[in-house]
Amino acid sequence: MSNLEETMKIFQKADAVCFDVDSTLIQDESIDDLAKFCGVGDEVQELTRQAMGGQKSYKESLEARLDLIKPSKSTMERFITQTPIKFTKGITSLVSKMQERGTAIYLVTGGFTCIVRSFAKELNIPVENIYANKLLFDYDGDYGGFDESEPTCSTGGKPKVMAILKEKFGYQRLVMIGDGATDMEACPPADAFIGFGGNQIRSKVQEGAQWFVTDFQELITVLDA
Amino acid sequence: MSNLEETMKIFQKADAVCFDVDSTLIQDESIDDLAKFCGVGDEVQELTRQAMGGQKSYKESLEARLDLIKPSKSTMERFITQTPIKFTKGITSLVSKMQERGTAIYLVTGGFTCIVRSFAKELNIPVENIYANKLLFDYDGDYGGFDESEPTCSTGGKPKVMAILKEKFGYQRLVMIGDGATDMEACPPADAFIGFGGNQIRSKVQEGAQWFVTDFQELITVLDA
Ligand SMILES: [Mg+2]
Ligand SMILES: [Mg+2]
Repeated sequence: MSNLEETMKIFQKADAVCFDVDSTLIQDESIDDLAKFCGVGDEVQELTRQAMGGQKSYKESLEARLDLIKPSKSTMERFITQTPIKFTKGITSLVSKMQERGTAIYLVTGGFTCIVRSFAKELNIPVENIYANKLLFDYDGDYGGFDESEPTCSTGGKPKVMAILKEKFGYQRLVMIGDGATDMEACPPADAFIGFGGNQIRSKVQEGAQWFVTDFQELITVLDA
Repeated sequence: MSNLEETMKIFQKADAVCFDVDSTLIQDESIDDLAKFCGVGDEVQELTRQAMGGQKSYKESLEARLDLIKPSKSTMERFITQTPIKFTKGITSLVSKMQERGTAIYLVTGGFTCIVRSFAKELNIPVENIYANKLLFDYDGDYGGFDESEPTCSTGGKPKVMAILKEKFGYQRLVMIGDGATDMEACPPADAFIGFGGNQIRSKVQEGAQWFVTDFQELITVLDA
């Protein structure tokens, strides 16, 4: 991994920046919010904590949490309509500043496309730039699992998405920004990683990241320098 | 497998009778009809023929056919609403006669629950008595796969359903009726198997079945005897 100065330089000239969503783009973990909405908040939060710590395969943990939540199509519709988006302070300015410079912005998350789409819309990020998990429903709209072919549902999914993006678009300075250990693991193939501790501080990330920030203003300042 | 006379006796006193659906309860293969409806009839019919012959694992064949058809939720809704049901001659009388005698009737098929439900409804078969495959859709209603945990999507699925029914309800004279090799394989655990050749004659079944009929009237006659 590049050191602090290199990381800053890569970020300043980034051709693509990927954001993690939960506890990075937004303040909370949306799967925990969904679980609360469905009345199984406590049980699911514990499993999310385990997933963040990386003690369990991501797919297993996702499956276990969804088996508790069992979100139907109509539950998801209500959740998406009724839950206000709590963006992390500074994200809107940061994203629009990078977009003005021509930097491609991606959202890469173990969360769900149907939820993340509304975040992307608010930030003018095209829907094709979302790499997330797909919830499935049966003919009656009951919960039916998730698309196991999405790279983001597996351990090692974020590195895989980075490799796909570099392969597909030839990015030379691809930056991943996120709060979690799985975000840090995306570099390499990402050319740089920025640890974000504005919502949650994961000690593994704080220690391992070459550049660790707790406020997106720090990134804006470097861009403006 | 019980011989012809035993098979007839078991059928006369059956506590449960399971019907295959495609080319047994109805005249056609509904997955082929669905494929035609979606404009990929020829390609899919060939794969169905292979599946019937048993040259390929059922799950593989189902996956390959659905990957060609890719039925969306709205396609399924239109297909179900617009496709007239072509019941096999005699099935309505046969089913209602058995129901009057208190015989439990099940539909056990590699086809799809959302389609088979309308057949069951017409024949007063409770929806819980359907063992079939569940199509899945994503949040936008696009095709998202099928529920791989249903026993009916795997090779050996029909025997498994028979075992489940015997275990759950303690049936002593459970009869399977169908046109295909996979139906014949359900006995045992089924106590008897009746090969049905009224729509399609599969040589393996014609040769292997202790009792092979080409008209449901033959079964009604035996019940009335
Ligand atoms: Mg996160
Ligand atoms: Mg059949």
